[in-house]
Amino acid sequence: MSFWKTWFSTPEAVATKSNSLEEVNDYATGNRNPGSERIIFSTERDIDLYELEELCDAVGWSRRPLRKVKKAIEHSFLVASMWQVRGNHRRLIGFARATSDHAFNATIWDVVVHPDFQGKGLGKALMKFVLKKLRSEEISNVTLFADPHVVDFYRGIGFMSDPEGIKGMFWYPH
Amino acid sequence: MSFWKTWFSTPEAVATKSNSLEEVNDYATGNRNPGSERIIFSTERDIDLYELEELCDAVGWSRRPLRKVKKAIEHSFLVASMWQVRGNHRRLIGFARATSDHAFNATIWDVVVHPDFQGKGLGKALMKFVLKKLRSEEISNVTLFADPHVVDFYRGIGFMSDPEGIKGMFWYPH
Repeated sequence: MSFWKTWFSTPEAVATKSNSLEEVNDYATGNRNPGSERIIFSTERDIDLYELEELCDAVGWSRRPLRKVKKAIEHSFLVASMWQVRGNHRRLIGFARATSDHAFNATIWDVVVHPDFQGKGLGKALMKFVLKKLRSEEISNVTLFADPHVVDFYRGIGFMSDPEGIKGMFWYPH
Repeated sequence: MSFWKTWFSTPEAVATKSNSLEEVNDYATGNRNPGSERIIFSTERDIDLYELEELCDAVGWSRRPLRKVKKAIEHSFLVASMWQVRGNHRRLIGFARATSDHAFNATIWDVVVHPDFQGKGLGKALMKFVLKKLRSEEISNVTLFADPHVVDFYRGIGFMSDPEGIKGMFWYPH
């Protein structure tokens, strides 16, 4: 348990500024004044759909009808967003959501970090936030479907592929 | 499309009696009177939790707190059950449920068919019912996590494992 305690010891919805994240911020902006910028996490659902679309565009995802994105957000169990805050301005730099039965299982979808903020530990920070939230709801089985190039990323934060031979499977209408 | 049209042409919530299912029933019961028994499918959520537990016991699943099972059923997008009906009596012989964002994705959980009714095409019939229901809600991406011994079963009804290298991954609290 101590491993997870360490992971989840940051104050709720706000990443601590006293560890590597602060360095990350400095690195990202070239700003050497530690007080000028921070990264925050939120579970609010009232996300500007155009801002979210812009974020998804930035990583090259296919566009989806905003009507359906809105519905999906409304019916997700958890909606997690990551923001860069500078003064009064905040910018959406990461997003993830999860469906769930509110009891046993949750499945994480649409994990995205803006390319300008990748490679700095922020994807990991976002996923820690998501896992912390799911854990606080007593969800014991968290799943996702990972594209080949991010399988190692998820392994690094404790996800296992095909445990005991269990296979993730897909069905699409033909 | 014609392939799926064929699959999904049975009347809603009731499997046709004019095909292999009827033979299946005869085989299962030894009853040679075709009118005496039928298999029906339902999406009603008002399932007797003890009857469901009995079904899950029959396939050797670990028991789960009924309070949590109740919550999971309440918060599932789709609850599908399969019943053997003889006269006024009906017996729960199969179950499945799905979580969903009501827009893009659904994930199927807890697929179970009573051992007395396995190997007769009823698991396939139950899954067809589930897929038909999900399709009618415009869900385009249906997923599940299959134990090794049922991977071929799901392949047989059109599920793919690891398409384009996408891996199903799991995280459990340590």
